[in-house]
Amino acid sequence: MEAYLDNSATTPVCPEAIEAINNTLTKCWGNPSSLHFGGIEASEVLENARHSIAKKLSCEDSEIFFTSGGTESNNIAIFGAAHAYRPKGMRIITTSIEHPSVEEPMKQLEKEGYDVVRLNVDKNGHFDERQLNAAVNTSTSLISIMAVNNEIGTIEAIEKVKSAVRKYNAPALIHCDAVQAFGKIPLKPHALGIDLMSISSHKIHGPKGAGALFIKKGSRIASTVFGGGQEKGIRPGTEPLPAIAGFGAAADAIKDIDVNLRIATQQRDYLISRLVELGGVVINSPVDALPYVTNISVTGIPSEVLLNYLSEMGIYISSGSACSKGHKSRVLTEIGLDSQRINSAVRISISRYTTKQEIDYFIQGVASAQKSMRRMK
Amino acid sequence: MEAYLDNSATTPVCPEAIEAINNTLTKCWGNPSSLHFGGIEASEVLENARHSIAKKLSCEDSEIFFTSGGTESNNIAIFGAAHAYRPKGMRIITTSIEHPSVEEPMKQLEKEGYDVVRLNVDKNGHFDERQLNAAVNTSTSLISIMAVNNEIGTIEAIEKVKSAVRKYNAPALIHCDAVQAFGKIPLKPHALGIDLMSISSHKIHGPKGAGALFIKKGSRIASTVFGGGQEKGIRPGTEPLPAIAGFGAAADAIKDIDVNLRIATQQRDYLISRLVELGGVVINSPVDALPYVTNISVTGIPSEVLLNYLSEMGIYISSGSACSKGHKSRVLTEIGLDSQRINSAVRISISRYTTKQEIDYFIQGVASAQKSMRRMK
Repeated sequence: MEAYLDNSATTPVCPEAIEAINNTLTKCWGNPSSLHFGGIEASEVLENARHSIAKKLSCEDSEIFFTSGGTESNNIAIFGAAHAYRPKGMRIITTSIEHPSVEEPMKQLEKEGYDVVRLNVDKNGHFDERQLNAAVNTSTSLISIMAVNNEIGTIEAIEKVKSAVRKYNAPALIHCDAVQAFGKIPLKPHALGIDLMSISSHKIHGPKGAGALFIKKGSRIASTVFGGGQEKGIRPGTEPLPAIAGFGAAADAIKDIDVNLRIATQQRDYLISRLVELGGVVINSPVDALPYVTNISVTGIPSEVLLNYLSEMGIYISSGSACSKGHKSRVLTEIGLDSQRINSAVRISISRYTTKQEIDYFIQGVASAQKSMRRMK
Repeated sequence: MEAYLDNSATTPVCPEAIEAINNTLTKCWGNPSSLHFGGIEASEVLENARHSIAKKLSCEDSEIFFTSGGTESNNIAIFGAAHAYRPKGMRIITTSIEHPSVEEPMKQLEKEGYDVVRLNVDKNGHFDERQLNAAVNTSTSLISIMAVNNEIGTIEAIEKVKSAVRKYNAPALIHCDAVQAFGKIPLKPHALGIDLMSISSHKIHGPKGAGALFIKKGSRIASTVFGGGQEKGIRPGTEPLPAIAGFGAAADAIKDIDVNLRIATQQRDYLISRLVELGGVVINSPVDALPYVTNISVTGIPSEVLLNYLSEMGIYISSGSACSKGHKSRVLTEIGLDSQRINSAVRISISRYTTKQEIDYFIQGVASAQKSMRRMK
């Protein structure tokens, strides 16, 4: 038996994506920039994938720019917006619990002289709206806030950002890292007042190696990568067509976000009820978190110990996020957890492929780990 | 019948790569950063691919950094070197016939105040060595010269660069865009005195979406992309594992570079003899070009017309490079061709999969195009 409960790190690739990828490997392997039939065919695959992604975001195809993944999307958005809007102002607002692919560019911008304000979050991970309103001013050029936190699943009130920008007459572009939200909750950047939105393929059962950046029509960002002009110069370089085709197919394969969400909620509730039954476990995710992500601390068992114990049993979870490679979680620190709880925190992240059997097997694994720890003491 | 003779734009994916990619889609789809077994397994695939690439460059595994492709490799190398070495000097030397993913970053660096010297090339596309020696000085921080030109196949004397750097005591890093050379001629960056070398997967029968940058041990370049620290911070973001695995397998599948080169030379010689027989054709590539790339002008037939005519017959070639999307070739201008010859230039690029039948069919296509043009006049 195996239980893969690390879907926020990466997801198994769905059959639809595998088929689409193989089509680009065996049939449509042309260069989309080539002017002959082989190129035109490849270019059609590219544009079909673009349409699939645009449909999910209720935006125009021309507002979708393919990248190599979420990190590249975030880098292009943040540097592109900050540099383009530099003459308008150098204040940037973000939160204290962003993904490293947002936080690290922010640190870099600080070195370039930008004034980066990081909003505090409460114990549930929600950013401080009053602080946002106090920080936004007429020289604010960029606000970057994630849609869903990758470690604890907090859903941020990103729809509040636009009104703050309007109220204080800020020239700011609004960027949203929606890597953990895309395909899991309905996301309409236009309705949410968002100018730039980053999404990724391998978090929605697509392959690694593709992502996209939504850029609202009319928004101008500076180029950060330079070359042959693909993706209208936003992301030059031959398009990673196999991964993009897989990304499009994976997006199409998400049939009903709401139904999936309801099932995920039931599974999360079941998971938590079983954990409560077990005892010795605290839930770190807020009650209103995205049900796909549940962060818990198993009292007295260090994260890495539990992770390795479960891995031996074929149960895959994460200590913090995969990207932090086991470093002490900034997110859990920011929501005010003490270090004991942080040191024993693990993340269980499910997907539409997760079964009740997997959750049961995970519970069995935790119970077994607890027993074995008790014996050692 | 079909004839794919546009292998410098992109190549058909070899069976070995397809198999390796499918392994990462169906079995090893974990996140290489994950600490559990699924992650460790994925990380092994990553490291095996790194070893495959390193072997081909006769370098250490730790000197290979995976990227999303040639354009990203060139951007990381050029900006990374220029920014890291800025305190040492702001002169950069390159040639006038580089790929857009080198030339466009150079233009950007000029905007940042760098002094970019572009070496002229002779009618064969070889850079001017005297000009190189005159340009190198103690404030030269970067020299970027391609190994093989993508449009005409000129093999540049990159081994001459290191001696110029030594002679004039320049602190410069030496970068080589080897995208068109990798897998086709033996490339040993250490022996060639090269610090940074860009290569790409989809030019060697690997998939689109992966490339690599060789960084000589001890060389320091500034980061240009920021995030979770993958690839030692040189290229953060979840690794495009399917494409990387395919890249590694494609590199392994190149069994004997010298044998392949001999066959390619025979095919190129056959192609040219048939073209000469046909008449009305001038060869734009130098006689000592890489035999995989042959640029010709078919007198009186504009490139796009010939390209479309042949495309209808299932013959795929390129007008200029795929990346320039049919814009007037800078390379052909720089080697001194007149505009009539430039306007009728096409590139035929072969691979180890090219057959004599394909070349014959191409000759038949050109003959037919010539006849049809004569009829129209």
